[in-house]
Amino acid sequence: MTSATPSTPSTPTADDPTTAPGAVMAAEMAEQPDVLGRLVARLPELGEAVRGALPTPLLGSTLIARGSSDNAAVFGRYLFEPASGRPAGLAAPSLVTRYGARTDYSGYLVTALSQSGRTPEIVTAVRAARERGARVVAITNEADSLLAAEADVLVATDAGTEIAVPATKTVTAQLLAVVGIALALGPLPPTVADLADLAELPDAVRRVLADTDACETLAADWAHHDRLVVAGRGLGGAVALEGALKIRETSGVFAEGISVADLLHGPIAALGARVPVLLIDVGGPTTPDIGALRERLVADGVPHATVAPELGGLRTEAARAIATTVHLQNLARMFALRRGANPDAPAGLAKVTPTT
Amino acid sequence: MTSATPSTPSTPTADDPTTAPGAVMAAEMAEQPDVLGRLVARLPELGEAVRGALPTPLLGSTLIARGSSDNAAVFGRYLFEPASGRPAGLAAPSLVTRYGARTDYSGYLVTALSQSGRTPEIVTAVRAARERGARVVAITNEADSLLAAEADVLVATDAGTEIAVPATKTVTAQLLAVVGIALALGPLPPTVADLADLAELPDAVRRVLADTDACETLAADWAHHDRLVVAGRGLGGAVALEGALKIRETSGVFAEGISVADLLHGPIAALGARVPVLLIDVGGPTTPDIGALRERLVADGVPHATVAPELGGLRTEAARAIATTVHLQNLARMFALRRGANPDAPAGLAKVTPTT
Repeated sequence: MTSATPSTPSTPTADDPTTAPGAVMAAEMAEQPDVLGRLVARLPELGEAVRGALPTPLLGSTLIARGSSDNAAVFGRYLFEPASGRPAGLAAPSLVTRYGARTDYSGYLVTALSQSGRTPEIVTAVRAARERGARVVAITNEADSLLAAEADVLVATDAGTEIAVPATKTVTAQLLAVVGIALALGPLPPTVADLADLAELPDAVRRVLADTDACETLAADWAHHDRLVVAGRGLGGAVALEGALKIRETSGVFAEGISVADLLHGPIAALGARVPVLLIDVGGPTTPDIGALRERLVADGVPHATVAPELGGLRTEAARAIATTVHLQNLARMFALRRGANPDAPAGLAKVTPTT
Repeated sequence: MTSATPSTPSTPTADDPTTAPGAVMAAEMAEQPDVLGRLVARLPELGEAVRGALPTPLLGSTLIARGSSDNAAVFGRYLFEPASGRPAGLAAPSLVTRYGARTDYSGYLVTALSQSGRTPEIVTAVRAARERGARVVAITNEADSLLAAEADVLVATDAGTEIAVPATKTVTAQLLAVVGIALALGPLPPTVADLADLAELPDAVRRVLADTDACETLAADWAHHDRLVVAGRGLGGAVALEGALKIRETSGVFAEGISVADLLHGPIAALGARVPVLLIDVGGPTTPDIGALRERLVADGVPHATVAPELGGLRTEAARAIATTVHLQNLARMFALRRGANPDAPAGLAKVTPTT
């Protein structure tokens, strides 16, 4: 188990009046290649710890999270189920904290995600699950947190202190940790995830961070929109949720992340010439779904753009999804700056949201 | 097993040029007391069929659905988990249809919801789960559908043909069926659901349908808003999802349903004086959460209203949630009419969405 490292001294702080808006977020985003590189190196050891803690037999797995951690949890459900061969789902913490449910979790793996490790409802729900038989893996950036204390296996994301309110390096580290846990649960198709491809991720993220032209252009083109939809499917659907949340948090724009299939089942009726759609394509078997939606949007006259950054070297969908998440951070940050918002410290948000 | 009944001859049709906009939806909404009354009477028999089909031991339960059926599935996960004492979660159909996952469902109850019984990805995912050990309950309005053919237990909602694109009577029937299945899985707290209280539901829904003043007023006040948020938690959170979807489908307004806790974890930053929030309070342990959010909205100057129709006689949260769903149908319909839209046949939507 590894402790979180202190933030690098070069990171600007949001309190410093000489810091330009968005500089803190940018500096933290720029740390991602190093954060991901350190975590990739630890994945074999973490995988061994997870395998040692699994129930026998494994009957199912549950992920527990809120906010951007919840988007990493959605990502995880698409990996844990095929890897383990058993159903995976997301917990509803209020079942414990409000309704007093006493669910039997024997035979289950519970994975809890919280950057701070301090969200009360997450800690409460995890404690209840563990008391009723769950084996618990906690993914958190704070290795001495309440959540970490409830874990059978602690995955410290080791991303250093995060000061900007929008979570960036802690989220991509969570996504990578989730892939590492999935690989420990069982085999995944070689097109979905493997350790060798994850080793390429830091360099790919470095390139994505530097390649900002497409984001600048789109931010300028769409800066006047007060609402937009971000759509993807499968692993790309989880990326869409996180991209939309990042745009909302940083810019105040009413962005909604949604599965392509769910969009077709009703919300597509609320689009039109005034609500643009950002399509997330991370490659893999959902690419034709993105293409089909694009054709429908063309026919309906709905403005749209496809996010598919140049990820040349990355072969697996999981790694491409993480790199695409970084591209969306760039977009969110530029979108906010174009609209005159300070992405480091959005109005109305605190770094830790103490929901119970 | 009961077949769906034909629609009553008095129901107007969307094709009839003499039919006023919204008349079909209104007529179908008005059938709900009868539809719910018929289904309430069948719940003991349906419960017996479900109990007879359960795996022993039951290891977990999974719900599979899309669109408004998915909102009924969310409702179900809050009931199935405490009733069965085992984790309940929602399936991601694309794991089967796109990623080819071969999940072992032995020991699981799978509940599939589809009004038409024809959504291809739902049928495919259910078939795959059953082939790998699931016992399947299908809730559908079409008793001779592909989905019904995959079921160990068929819950035909028997709501009659539904012509208006926005699902109303079929959704409340699904919600009621879900409560009936939950009661068959095990005991629920008496504040959450019981059969005696469900027997009061048809009369309560009749009163809600007739009590339109609050909906008319809110529709007039908020008609100029192009976007709004509908927030609830727990069972009320599922009602919020369905209310928001109904508003989007009927009016084209960009309404988003969200859990109060998720709203606080980011999206609240995108509110302000221009995005109103509709708060759903169905009573029960989440009422204080709704109150706390209301205080925050007051402090932040965010326009808001609380939906809590007069449900005097109803004691349980599940029954109150179903009746509140009807109130939101009234609101969605009036909201659409105020904005000049035809709620019977929204632009860009078909009655059956054939997602794969």
